[in-house]
Amino acid sequence: MTSIAMIEAAAQRLAGRARRTPLLASPFLDEIAGRRVLVKAECLQHTGSFKFRGAWSAVSALDADMRARGVIAFSSGNHAQGVALAAAQHGTSAVIVMPADAPALKIANTRALGAEVVLYDRARENRDAIGAALAAERGLTLIRPYDDPQVIAGQGTMGLEIAEQAAEAGVTKADVIVCCGGGGLTSGTALALEARAPGLRVRTAEPAGFDDAARSVAAGSIQRNAALSGSICDAIVTPEPGQLTFPILRRLCGPGLSVTDDEALAAMALAFLRLKLVLEPGGAVALAAALFRRDQIAGDAVIVTASGGNVGAEVFGQALARFAA
Amino acid sequence: MTSIAMIEAAAQRLAGRARRTPLLASPFLDEIAGRRVLVKAECLQHTGSFKFRGAWSAVSALDADMRARGVIAFSSGNHAQGVALAAAQHGTSAVIVMPADAPALKIANTRALGAEVVLYDRARENRDAIGAALAAERGLTLIRPYDDPQVIAGQGTMGLEIAEQAAEAGVTKADVIVCCGGGGLTSGTALALEARAPGLRVRTAEPAGFDDAARSVAAGSIQRNAALSGSICDAIVTPEPGQLTFPILRRLCGPGLSVTDDEALAAMALAFLRLKLVLEPGGAVALAAALFRRDQIAGDAVIVTASGGNVGAEVFGQALARFAA
Repeated sequence: MTSIAMIEAAAQRLAGRARRTPLLASPFLDEIAGRRVLVKAECLQHTGSFKFRGAWSAVSALDADMRARGVIAFSSGNHAQGVALAAAQHGTSAVIVMPADAPALKIANTRALGAEVVLYDRARENRDAIGAALAAERGLTLIRPYDDPQVIAGQGTMGLEIAEQAAEAGVTKADVIVCCGGGGLTSGTALALEARAPGLRVRTAEPAGFDDAARSVAAGSIQRNAALSGSICDAIVTPEPGQLTFPILRRLCGPGLSVTDDEALAAMALAFLRLKLVLEPGGAVALAAALFRRDQIAGDAVIVTASGGNVGAEVFGQALARFAA
Repeated sequence: MTSIAMIEAAAQRLAGRARRTPLLASPFLDEIAGRRVLVKAECLQHTGSFKFRGAWSAVSALDADMRARGVIAFSSGNHAQGVALAAAQHGTSAVIVMPADAPALKIANTRALGAEVVLYDRARENRDAIGAALAAERGLTLIRPYDDPQVIAGQGTMGLEIAEQAAEAGVTKADVIVCCGGGGLTSGTALALEARAPGLRVRTAEPAGFDDAARSVAAGSIQRNAALSGSICDAIVTPEPGQLTFPILRRLCGPGLSVTDDEALAAMALAFLRLKLVLEPGGAVALAAALFRRDQIAGDAVIVTASGGNVGAEVFGQALARFAA
């Protein structure tokens, strides 16, 4: 189980490696939200998302022998890039298992960060079997995207920064809205804030119709999503909260929030106009919740995570054409 | 004349007011440039550009009586927004004189930041006469965009940050390429680096055909641009270097660089893809010079300023469609 001591140890290992991302704000966003909005710009993290924190934490926590044999991950997105860069910077190898129909740019980026990309046919091959065979054959260690204590500890380092930066901004009591997929960032942040800023309460933000975390927290037991595709916020659509992350979410999180795809796109346009940040749809749902669910939020200030910015020109251009023109 | 002592005094006044913007990097940009590229993300400054630093410095340096009577500026762009916000935060009034045909969004933004906008007809009215009459009538103080010692000192605070952040990144000898209009940011940064990081040398970046600063430095005397329109980098097109800024540029700057409009747009697309930053064309010329003028740069590392991000959806979408698709 991840503890505050593990999060602080991860912060020590990440010092000088992960970026301390800024906490940004704009009077124009405050006006829309009806309160101060503080935006943790994690899209400026290495590889364009918070995932680098957890990946670095996990790779750096391995003993030297295991690390030298290399790591493996399943991902076509932000986790892949985080693991690839963390492994390369540790001087070890990373194998990333990706579906053959993943976007060419994502495959190219993951390779450019030094990883070996193994492609599989989604329709005919079993990803887990391929990964297990490779791991056994080469002695690779699997780095899970969220259900790993050291990954949760690494994501929690963002929470330590929020605790400090919110205090510097004079905010000691507020909701902290976190873009939530499997719950690694949310649970790590909640643990960090519980220990370092107990007046800050974490709440999840998810796409409407894919709000498994919110429903699980409300029900007190893990609830699944009915579907796994159909949202533009693909980076944060997961089947259900993790086995390790859910107990933390249940204990520490307030009621979850959800937003529509159009609200996520509108938040991307506002981040472009007012913060000069590039957000991907899944990285914009927390900001969208702060801006467009103001009646479900209390207090003078709200903190949101802008958790990733890995979006293609087409989707971004669509957000601007519809909501920033 | 601006001195290092004035820059450090401005940094004291700006502490907790201006953002300490991050110094970002991406291995993908390093690859294109053939060396490490460190990007000072000043587009994340309040109001979306470095101009807030100089405006705050100048307003905060006024004696209390003058400040209480209010300030005035001529600008349709970044300087207007910087002065408007700095005045509002000091609890005083700002009059911004803008051409009536300025983009509606810029007029609305300047008003939303609390300024009184006075519009004039570019073809039939004299801007300076309108400003002088208003200033005399109401006792307003003019805040010039660059040829003011306290404005230069405020912009120089960015140079103090670069000196510290470059040292943290292990870079003590490199060119620092600065997007250059009238020379306020360039001269302030050059003065700061002369005192605090003498191994870092400032060079100007300008649009091709509008490289008055580069030609002036080369000639040793102020040279004018042949035209004042025709570049997409409108924010940094000025008639000639300032009377106060030019002697500093001549004494401290290395050879200037220039880039085409298409290179500025390509740099915007790369900042979108690799840094998750929104840059305006004039704020992207230094990055463009680092990426596309590598043969004119020496050393293992180069530092560039990304000086502003106030760009409309249409121009930004055009940059993405052409260079990030």
